[in-house]
Amino acid sequence: MTNMLICYYSRSGNTKAMAMKIAEGAGSKKITVDVKKVSETKAADLLGYDCIIFGSPTYYGTYAAELKSLIDKSVKYHGDLRGKVGGAFASCGVLGGGCETTVAQLLEALLIHGMIIIGDTEGAHYGPVSIEKPDKEVEKTCIEYGKRLAELTIKLH
Amino acid sequence: MTNMLICYYSRSGNTKAMAMKIAEGAGSKKITVDVKKVSETKAADLLGYDCIIFGSPTYYGTYAAELKSLIDKSVKYHGDLRGKVGGAFASCGVLGGGCETTVAQLLEALLIHGMIIIGDTEGAHYGPVSIEKPDKEVEKTCIEYGKRLAELTIKLH
Amino acid sequence: MTNMLICYYSRSGNTKAMAMKIAEGAGSKKITVDVKKVSETKAADLLGYDCIIFGSPTYYGTYAAELKSLIDKSVKYHGDLRGKVGGAFASCGVLGGGCETTVAQLLEALLIHGMIIIGDTEGAHYGPVSIEKPDKEVEKTCIEYGKRLAELTIKLH
Amino acid sequence: MTNMLICYYSRSGNTKAMAMKIAEGAGSKKITVDVKKVSETKAADLLGYDCIIFGSPTYYGTYAAELKSLIDKSVKYHGDLRGKVGGAFASCGVLGGGCETTVAQLLEALLIHGMIIIGDTEGAHYGPVSIEKPDKEVEKTCIEYGKRLAELTIKLH
Repeated sequence: MTNMLICYYSRSGNTKAMAMKIAEGAGSKKITVDVKKVSETKAADLLGYDCIIFGSPTYYGTYAAELKSLIDKSVKYHGDLRGKVGGAFASCGVLGGGCETTVAQLLEALLIHGMIIIGDTEGAHYGPVSIEKPDKEVEKTCIEYGKRLAELTIKLH
Repeated sequence: MTNMLICYYSRSGNTKAMAMKIAEGAGSKKITVDVKKVSETKAADLLGYDCIIFGSPTYYGTYAAELKSLIDKSVKYHGDLRGKVGGAFASCGVLGGGCETTVAQLLEALLIHGMIIIGDTEGAHYGPVSIEKPDKEVEKTCIEYGKRLAELTIKLH
Repeated sequence: MTNMLICYYSRSGNTKAMAMKIAEGAGSKKITVDVKKVSETKAADLLGYDCIIFGSPTYYGTYAAELKSLIDKSVKYHGDLRGKVGGAFASCGVLGGGCETTVAQLLEALLIHGMIIIGDTEGAHYGPVSIEKPDKEVEKTCIEYGKRLAELTIKLH
Repeated sequence: MTNMLICYYSRSGNTKAMAMKIAEGAGSKKITVDVKKVSETKAADLLGYDCIIFGSPTYYGTYAAELKSLIDKSVKYHGDLRGKVGGAFASCGVLGGGCETTVAQLLEALLIHGMIIIGDTEGAHYGPVSIEKPDKEVEKTCIEYGKRLAELTIKLH
């Protein structure tokens, strides 16, 4: 069966809450969804999924060093993730606090792995973002994002 | 006297409202502030200012074609803006709607003109952003941004 | 039959040369390829293609105002390009001259249209870039890029 | 006396070679220059400099996790780097390989620390980039970059 990994780093719980809502959306489609912390994910684990979505809080305009470390280690499998579907989401502390640049930079990492990404005409265009705790609107965006990425993965698989 | 240009493009009035608040902040310092529409600004006008701040709504992740056109025409004066202070701000329709990438891309244009830019440790880090009409918090960010850029310009002048 | 539009802006001919090589690569697959100047492309034309690739020289860190103008006008069809495949390429005058940021910003515009993009594990990761006239290496990158986007479009169609 | 830190991460030696050339350029001005590996730099060390320049190879479109880790730790001193001058440089393996996005993302981190950055009208606009080993042209760009940042730091100090 087609499967998806949602791999996140979270201290406050805000990014984790977003991960859970994305999983909820994806889970409504015919796809197996695993939600894992970065600390529980090995670079080799990425090989086993058809879709990989990374989430992080925003630290200095981009994703946490812990997630960057996992991505740097994934160079061992450079080329092996080609054609998989990818996605990204981020939380931050304040409007204009770097959420968007964090998502954009995660997407760039996925592109360098030869992965396929998709944007959205409504809501958060590059991927879900939240200021502090996700509100109802952000939760909805996350659910829709999970659905959309699941659909694309199933279509391509 | 040290002077500043705030040059904006606005249809709904939201970006204009931000321009006015930045001018209010800057105006509290010893600096002359001009606020102009893009349509009233010629590339040659840029030469006459010590600080240039551009503002735009977000269209497809970056600033409006009308402002891009002015920036493209400024190539005639390439090199002549070196050492001036620059800044940027943007409005957009929705959280994650591309405000931050718009500001970041305006800053890149200013850097290519050899200009000097400054970030902020609080609030909108790259430059003020607003979702729809600026609220009290965004207005405050704009006022502080105007002050900070005025101070840096006066210091460098 | 599946079809692709390669829409470019070029003054020196460098970006046009890249467009032609991308078309050459795509043309080796079962897909109809149209190569058009921005000035010959209407926003409504975008609706008729399964894959849209934009190319531009780099002016102040991003794509030309003429191309931005077309993209701004495409808002009339916002939502109608969802699920199409997109791509981008850029030329610039010097190493570090803004080629990559130009490609990245075109990709962001495509994402906001809800389009699907793909990166590459080798060569220019986000999309082809050239410093001045495309050399043999860049030509090869363009040909491979055309092939890869054609393949993805055919698969999704 | 005004001082500058050039803090780099390097495995192949390419980024280190760039650091040395930037130091050479800066050293021609009235400024003390320290060149340090990321592994030898503590977040607290950043407080002691008037100018901080970060350099890294490009891994997945941005700087190495080791440097990100230092930047994440610098949050302990958030606000204390305001008004310092910042800069960035990067090496990568191939044209279009992510050099520019690496530099742009380091500059965003510096902006979030409230630092002051400057671009260039010639050569690498955002900061020096090198494909593999720096050639004569890149070395010259690095030397000029060191000079320019030293001059700005002295002026602001």
